[in-house]
Amino acid sequence: MSFFPSALDRLVEKFASLPGIGMKSAQRLAFHMLSLSDDAANDFAAAIVEAKKKVHYCRICQNLTDEDECLICRSPHREKGVVCVVADPKDVAAIERAREYNGRYHVLHGVISPLNHIGPDDIKIKELVERVADGGIDEIIMATNPDTEGETTAKYISRLLKPFGVKVTRLAYGIPMGASLEFADDATLMRAIEGRQEI
Amino acid sequence: MSFFPSALDRLVEKFASLPGIGMKSAQRLAFHMLSLSDDAANDFAAAIVEAKKKVHYCRICQNLTDEDECLICRSPHREKGVVCVVADPKDVAAIERAREYNGRYHVLHGVISPLNHIGPDDIKIKELVERVADGGIDEIIMATNPDTEGETTAKYISRLLKPFGVKVTRLAYGIPMGASLEFADDATLMRAIEGRQEI
Repeated sequence: MSFFPSALDRLVEKFASLPGIGMKSAQRLAFHMLSLSDDAANDFAAAIVEAKKKVHYCRICQNLTDEDECLICRSPHREKGVVCVVADPKDVAAIERAREYNGRYHVLHGVISPLNHIGPDDIKIKELVERVADGGIDEIIMATNPDTEGETTAKYISRLLKPFGVKVTRLAYGIPMGASLEFADDATLMRAIEGRQEI
Repeated sequence: MSFFPSALDRLVEKFASLPGIGMKSAQRLAFHMLSLSDDAANDFAAAIVEAKKKVHYCRICQNLTDEDECLICRSPHREKGVVCVVADPKDVAAIERAREYNGRYHVLHGVISPLNHIGPDDIKIKELVERVADGGIDEIIMATNPDTEGETTAKYISRLLKPFGVKVTRLAYGIPMGASLEFADDATLMRAIEGRQEI
């Protein structure tokens, strides 16, 4: 039996259904919500509804946007011939923060993962192939994570795109900046040696 | 500059404003919200609005309820003469879980805390004094937490209630069940010895 009114129980349940939020945290969050002013609580609810209603995928790159095409795809200053393929919108934000890349993106919204029943048709690969088939793209930079699933996805896509004669590259692997060799793992060191460059 | 649509940024901000949620968690929660179905997201928003609208304080004990009087105050099976004073609705739930107490409650919604600028008028003390003044109450059990602020609040309230000739008691202090003496702190051991009882 619960000792809270049912409307509060329902809110606790909702919070507990979020990833990484347990029952205790959900309770704390629900109580916090009740302690807010009416306006602040309604604002919170409206932000959820609005984000869900307004945010969708960019027609071209599948990144999140509230317009038909995202800011990057609309920008006249970005190279149209280079497309960086990432698994997640958060990866776009990470690469943009580095201020080094000036091409466009393609967001897959996932990686191929047979263990989780995610096949090539479950992520935005078809849309990428169509973009390449439409022409005007010289280079595809695969920027999925350097783990098994990311690698598999990168390999799979590069094989799909080869027939179009487009250059497919992969982000460099190596020692991260500021790290010490001593603590680098074997796999990273191996890749760093393989990928050594003349200075 | 943010790389997400503004509606998404706003949702991330809202989540980040919750207690114990940092920017990274807020981002994860916002993305999770976008990944829900329209119905599920709207349900979540509605749960917030509804809880905020329906849940208020019980007219008698100030506990959270969605009716005029809470379940416990309405119950004919609970002793009307005993009132357990707690700081927080969560404490009511904790005591109810113990299935030992059969009186009513009074929820203060906080404790006196000069450091946080919370004085006696900022919590539900006036309502408690009115209840006692109305008569019919024989015993007040102070069940605030055994820390400085909880103690101060208990002392303050017991002094206020003395003139009404009501008996004011305090929860017993001692070694928690299942704990080992070896690891009990000095203050707890001292209280346990002071409060020893014949068996």
